[in-house]
Amino acid sequence: MTHAAIRQAAYAANMQLPELGLVLFTFGNASAVDRKAGVFAIKPSGVPYRELTPEMMIIVDYEGRVVEGNLRPSSDTKTHALLYKEWSNIGGIVHTHSTYGTAWAQAQLPIPIMGTTHADHLTVDVPCAPPMADARISGNYEHETGWQIIEHFRELGLDPSEVEMILVGNHAPFTWGKSVEKAVYHAAVLEEVARMAYLSRQINPDAPRLKESLVQKHWQRKHGKDAYYGQQ
Amino acid sequence: MTHAAIRQAAYAANMQLPELGLVLFTFGNASAVDRKAGVFAIKPSGVPYRELTPEMMIIVDYEGRVVEGNLRPSSDTKTHALLYKEWSNIGGIVHTHSTYGTAWAQAQLPIPIMGTTHADHLTVDVPCAPPMADARISGNYEHETGWQIIEHFRELGLDPSEVEMILVGNHAPFTWGKSVEKAVYHAAVLEEVARMAYLSRQINPDAPRLKESLVQKHWQRKHGKDAYYGQQ
Amino acid sequence: MTHAAIRQAAYAANMQLPELGLVLFTFGNASAVDRKAGVFAIKPSGVPYRELTPEMMIIVDYEGRVVEGNLRPSSDTKTHALLYKEWSNIGGIVHTHSTYGTAWAQAQLPIPIMGTTHADHLTVDVPCAPPMADARISGNYEHETGWQIIEHFRELGLDPSEVEMILVGNHAPFTWGKSVEKAVYHAAVLEEVARMAYLSRQINPDAPRLKESLVQKHWQRKHGKDAYYGQQ
Amino acid sequence: MTHAAIRQAAYAANMQLPELGLVLFTFGNASAVDRKAGVFAIKPSGVPYRELTPEMMIIVDYEGRVVEGNLRPSSDTKTHALLYKEWSNIGGIVHTHSTYGTAWAQAQLPIPIMGTTHADHLTVDVPCAPPMADARISGNYEHETGWQIIEHFRELGLDPSEVEMILVGNHAPFTWGKSVEKAVYHAAVLEEVARMAYLSRQINPDAPRLKESLVQKHWQRKHGKDAYYGQQ
Repeated sequence: MTHAAIRQAAYAANMQLPELGLVLFTFGNASAVDRKAGVFAIKPSGVPYRELTPEMMIIVDYEGRVVEGNLRPSSDTKTHALLYKEWSNIGGIVHTHSTYGTAWAQAQLPIPIMGTTHADHLTVDVPCAPPMADARISGNYEHETGWQIIEHFRELGLDPSEVEMILVGNHAPFTWGKSVEKAVYHAAVLEEVARMAYLSRQINPDAPRLKESLVQKHWQRKHGKDAYYGQQ
Repeated sequence: MTHAAIRQAAYAANMQLPELGLVLFTFGNASAVDRKAGVFAIKPSGVPYRELTPEMMIIVDYEGRVVEGNLRPSSDTKTHALLYKEWSNIGGIVHTHSTYGTAWAQAQLPIPIMGTTHADHLTVDVPCAPPMADARISGNYEHETGWQIIEHFRELGLDPSEVEMILVGNHAPFTWGKSVEKAVYHAAVLEEVARMAYLSRQINPDAPRLKESLVQKHWQRKHGKDAYYGQQ
Repeated sequence: MTHAAIRQAAYAANMQLPELGLVLFTFGNASAVDRKAGVFAIKPSGVPYRELTPEMMIIVDYEGRVVEGNLRPSSDTKTHALLYKEWSNIGGIVHTHSTYGTAWAQAQLPIPIMGTTHADHLTVDVPCAPPMADARISGNYEHETGWQIIEHFRELGLDPSEVEMILVGNHAPFTWGKSVEKAVYHAAVLEEVARMAYLSRQINPDAPRLKESLVQKHWQRKHGKDAYYGQQ
Repeated sequence: MTHAAIRQAAYAANMQLPELGLVLFTFGNASAVDRKAGVFAIKPSGVPYRELTPEMMIIVDYEGRVVEGNLRPSSDTKTHALLYKEWSNIGGIVHTHSTYGTAWAQAQLPIPIMGTTHADHLTVDVPCAPPMADARISGNYEHETGWQIIEHFRELGLDPSEVEMILVGNHAPFTWGKSVEKAVYHAAVLEEVARMAYLSRQINPDAPRLKESLVQKHWQRKHGKDAYYGQQ
């Protein structure tokens, strides 16, 4: 069986999603890319997590065409494919319908940056792309979902190497990272900052965003050139 | 022992309810029907889930009469019986008092369709039948609960093959499906969309319902004639 | 060792409290009474649940005096003692600081009866005794807490055989029952109806209480002379 | 290996944090001090809890200098060091980003004392230090975080032997105690009172603080000279 490394990585990442409480039933998927081979491994569509094996992962190219695998790939495969094609620095993608993240997406609002937990991971609000236009929905829907994400990043001037998560309005979160493990990590971080921001705004509707000096400090200590968080 | 298949299916479905966090103590029940035999298997009343066995399931006909079993069937048996009698396409029914679903029922409001998680399963708000009239309550209460559900579907012009869940006002959710496994699945989906809709409205009281183009797209990709979700 | 039956019952009930998610650390206690002997068994004060044994339960009389046991009994012992003394029909008592129940107590509001889940267990709002008067607080505090409960029941004309739970304002829930197992059950029911009522009022601040016909129907089918819930 | 006792204590305390649901991933740290040796043991930075061993704990002095250990210590080490240096009575420190505590910190509000659960542990609102000034942030940030905590205690006239917890505005909770076990305990207590106060204010925005007679009664029965809670 080919592409053992990305199969294993995608499998392990998918299995993390229910363990972290990020998915109910099959409401999520993770994929891992092999940049040299130009393909990625993704969860088969609608298969319960407990039945998954690395061998069941589907190998797909950047046009969304199945390269290897007997099962049908995740219905969101074309979104993954486009993001891999357009954003050459990302190594893994996760899509969930995690509760608090999805609640903000349904509220059609970005998740405001309210504290250092958020700033440890990104310096801006978690962006929320608007609900898609009808022409996009009736077209190649999952492919267009990828464009909706990419264009919203362009509009906001965001770099997907620095901001590794988004909400798609009325839909749910997508996250990514240098590896699929990082993409899973970001999916859990998004859910937690979504929950904290919700609670903060309920407690104090007028609570301000985190000020820029704290945003930069927390980001820099974890991600800047003189970062001192973690074991280098 | 007769009706082994529906006993086993009803047993397994009942055991899923506490595992999915949908019931406290004995606040729920599941049943599975055998259309050829014209009977269904249902949980005995008030028996803790951990003591259940397939043999303890009660076999009941569409008039709510016990066909086999020494224990008293669920107090909600007549509701199940009427739904099986009137809706010949359903194969299983679940009733829970799951927290968020019940909270919307107590609020006497349908669960608004706020995102694609909801539209993946139904194209309309989760209906909420009004609290029952006093004459119905003082009559054959559980049988009348069935009529309350059926008549609300008729009023709204809903098809129980397409909309497989309802709230009974001031009471709690009922769900169903082609099989009892599907009915359990719908009970968990109802609880999750109830929770997400609650949170979305708390975050943004003015958040609009999901627009029709997205409703139809998500429903069609999972349930339409050209559905491409899952392994057919 | 004497009083083995109530020791075992109190022990088992105390162990249920963390399992049901009703206590953090040692924030709760359960007791079981032996009406013939005129004593009850109660948890020792401040001992972690995982270290408890039936032998560690303290045997106390209705005046709150230790009859047997080397450890200090729960700091709430005098409240239990008075309730046993004044209410001769109750067999067990539970006190917790469960999250949602305590939140309503801190809000100084009874838990409104909003649905059938509540009416399955009692026909009125869960009462909330007002915060105690300063003279009571500076006196024999835990004994006076018992009087606060009893007098609030008298003022509202409630029968402790029918309404088996209360909030003490700014403090937390107390529940009881024919046995300590029932008292534990009521502690969990109180927490769940507290949570559901909270959510219902957040969803719809104008949601009305459950109407009387439904209150009576649900209570009667579970507790009336023609009750048909459970296995008699 | 030196300092076995504080290594073991710090290790055990760190492992408690995910078990108590107080940290996601590595968002927290605990330390234990040896007052005779003038050093403390603290978690290494960014290492997942499941990989920790007592031997991996880093030994640090009150100036924040590593005395023993090959790994980089927690990024919050200088905050711990200053608190140990300035507050000679504390034996352990815990920092988490627990959900409800952090939500109040992001709301820039102290956690109001609403009930006896709170008064069992402290007689005042859980203080919330204001977000740090820009000069402090751009300076020796973690060291200055310690000063932010200490100065806020001075301003409010609080004694760190009696009030063993604080929120740092827009950041998260810090707690401490006579031992690191107590600091962990306080971290869990803070999270629970944060959650209860949140819910009480949602239920009743006008709910008053706990009156002083009850505050003092509950504090005294657990901590006063005639305390009668626990086994002395």
